[in-house]
Amino acid sequence: MDRVIRLGMLGCGTVGGGVATILAREADDITARTGAKLEITRVAVRDPGKDRGPALADSVVTTDPMEVVEAEDVDVVVEVMGGRRPAGDLIRRALELGKPVVTANKELVAHEGAELYAAARAAGVDLAYEAAVAGAIPIIKPMKESLAGDHVQRVVGILNGTTNYILTRMTEEGADYDEVLGDAQALGYAESDPTADVGGHDAAAKCAILASLAFDTTVRQEDVFTAGIESVTATDIRVADRLGYVIKLLGIASVVDDRVGVRVHPAFLPKTHPLAAVRGSYNAVFVQARAAGELMFYGPGAGAEPTGSAVVGDVIDVARNLLQTARGATESQHRPMEIRPIEELTTQYYVLLDVEDRAGVLAQVATVLGDHDVSIAQVWQEGRGDSAQLVLVTHQAREGNLRATVDALDGVSSVRNVASVLRVESEVFGS
Amino acid sequence: MDRVIRLGMLGCGTVGGGVATILAREADDITARTGAKLEITRVAVRDPGKDRGPALADSVVTTDPMEVVEAEDVDVVVEVMGGRRPAGDLIRRALELGKPVVTANKELVAHEGAELYAAARAAGVDLAYEAAVAGAIPIIKPMKESLAGDHVQRVVGILNGTTNYILTRMTEEGADYDEVLGDAQALGYAESDPTADVGGHDAAAKCAILASLAFDTTVRQEDVFTAGIESVTATDIRVADRLGYVIKLLGIASVVDDRVGVRVHPAFLPKTHPLAAVRGSYNAVFVQARAAGELMFYGPGAGAEPTGSAVVGDVIDVARNLLQTARGATESQHRPMEIRPIEELTTQYYVLLDVEDRAGVLAQVATVLGDHDVSIAQVWQEGRGDSAQLVLVTHQAREGNLRATVDALDGVSSVRNVASVLRVESEVFGS
Repeated sequence: MDRVIRLGMLGCGTVGGGVATILAREADDITARTGAKLEITRVAVRDPGKDRGPALADSVVTTDPMEVVEAEDVDVVVEVMGGRRPAGDLIRRALELGKPVVTANKELVAHEGAELYAAARAAGVDLAYEAAVAGAIPIIKPMKESLAGDHVQRVVGILNGTTNYILTRMTEEGADYDEVLGDAQALGYAESDPTADVGGHDAAAKCAILASLAFDTTVRQEDVFTAGIESVTATDIRVADRLGYVIKLLGIASVVDDRVGVRVHPAFLPKTHPLAAVRGSYNAVFVQARAAGELMFYGPGAGAEPTGSAVVGDVIDVARNLLQTARGATESQHRPMEIRPIEELTTQYYVLLDVEDRAGVLAQVATVLGDHDVSIAQVWQEGRGDSAQLVLVTHQAREGNLRATVDALDGVSSVRNVASVLRVESEVFGS
Repeated sequence: MDRVIRLGMLGCGTVGGGVATILAREADDITARTGAKLEITRVAVRDPGKDRGPALADSVVTTDPMEVVEAEDVDVVVEVMGGRRPAGDLIRRALELGKPVVTANKELVAHEGAELYAAARAAGVDLAYEAAVAGAIPIIKPMKESLAGDHVQRVVGILNGTTNYILTRMTEEGADYDEVLGDAQALGYAESDPTADVGGHDAAAKCAILASLAFDTTVRQEDVFTAGIESVTATDIRVADRLGYVIKLLGIASVVDDRVGVRVHPAFLPKTHPLAAVRGSYNAVFVQARAAGELMFYGPGAGAEPTGSAVVGDVIDVARNLLQTARGATESQHRPMEIRPIEELTTQYYVLLDVEDRAGVLAQVATVLGDHDVSIAQVWQEGRGDSAQLVLVTHQAREGNLRATVDALDGVSSVRNVASVLRVESEVFGS
């Protein structure tokens, strides 16, 4: 007879519902593939009265998550409640009890991953979190296992579906940010308070997790330089297009001189780059490794069933290990590294200036750039009269110098306003 | 002290050299990540006199592969010699001895996978073959493990780098097939006998392996309907472009009415499809799963280090399992399925006809199509006089009907020649 692995689920919202649906629907195949039956024996929810559909029996529902963690009839804890508290304590308790944990909680892992990995290691049990980064896309496992013999040099990701949806529509329709955001909210692609998404914070959490894994070190969300897409305009997108780029919100992690550079911000990306073709609410993670070369992993970054699929994949992994009293691959954090300040970043920049429409403006602007060691790759004027603008693309420059330049440009009489500053990630990404 | 896992390598050509290089270069990280030292203790080669570089000591080299398999100081067998014989017998012997095997041998797995999986299962040891499909791209492991709780509905891959390189150059330069092939041969992107690549056979082997995994069944290379890119012309590519498509050599596997349809052929693919952006010698595998949705895995499909990276990833997996006397996920082949004949395929078609430039031609052609239950979505004439051509795009039609149509068109007086017939894989792929 097939062995039964009993699951205790913490939370049963969007993702939890997806997990329950998938486990019920694919039960026979899962048993055939793993030799085990996966059964949800306990579920902690906030509102026990809510109808959970046919996938979950009423009898398994409770309002006490710690009861689920500690229950004798729970072998594996599946945390899909989100947030740092009480999820963190519940997971720690589960590990302490020797129960493997599967979580979809990016916020928690991005802030407390190092401690949780250590707790899992100490307890000798699995902690899996594929669903915490980029929804359905298998990326944690490939990084941790498939690339375990390789040396990851850089990770570049489109890690947030809402912002990619907004930027895609702005690009394809020439529309303004506010207009598309309103639409996205109406369609349910963006929250009524969209800050976590459009401000880049959600992407920053995922980027921290990926950077930790990529470089065998500890990177936390607060280490990630984070800028959102709120100030990206239709003009910026038009200029990018004209120069052969698209604008994407990128999470970029790399190691320079033994320090980790890790940042999330909108950037110009060459149209020929594989990430440039990632449209709508899709996510993708581009990984550059010494031996493997350039890899990309693409798929839906969110949603009940996509995220549920990643959770169930983890549950099966953990179950297979349980059946053999084995453990999956663990995070290696053997290389402590400092975080490289954003001021030391070297990349190209696009700068859009509202200027007076008269002779001598370019000379004034060029002098300021030259004084700050920023050299100009390309410059042209857009519009005339009151709507005159100067478009500048720099050669590789230091972020610190660029910022000083922008401050100084604010004081130049012929410059009415610094309208936009965006990083340009050329074929060879900034280092 | 770290435990040592001793590797016996069969073959040391391009891939084997890559494996040795990576193992030497990343040794410290690999040990930190796995808790084991991986050491090549034996290598079987054809020419023992050849210099293998600093990564391999002379003392480990032998010309007898069976000696490597059976050696007491070999814990894991790494087969990178290729070909079905003697590789198959060596692997079977290794499994029999309880030694896990890592192989990069697509030909062997595509023909004898079912027997090898069974042998590994019977022996209770791992058989890993990530490198056999799409080089560096982690795809076997994600399919076998990450998607173990999902239901794969369709796999579509660009599985051969040579043909994708040729088609990309034809597309971007408007060049002819013969010209680009010659160039590709001169540059080392194509073999002097390019049949295995351009004829679609290499892609068919990989497609068979993916189909087996995707649908928990047994698909062999000979089950794959296979057509190559030799007859794709610059005109075909130009027409595709005009209609919003690119031409790619696709491997497509799906299940219809409990039968597996599995085919490799050049096809029109919408430019907006993620696979359309896969350029040059890159590979990519697009997976459609019930819960996860649309995933894509992208990367280099060949090369010493990319393929070596996949082999080393497998070796580490296998080593981790050995250390715990555990086993990785096994192939499930619990669903025996018939192969669906290509004649039953339903998709759209592009047909290019050389025709007489006179009134009534379209009526004749349209009558033939109508008689065979093939309806026309779009039609126009290209060129005049002796170079007059009729371009047809059909609605969804049965392959059998389309073939009968083409045969019948050959007998139509105003049709001088059926110049091209290609399948059109629209947004919703043919089923």
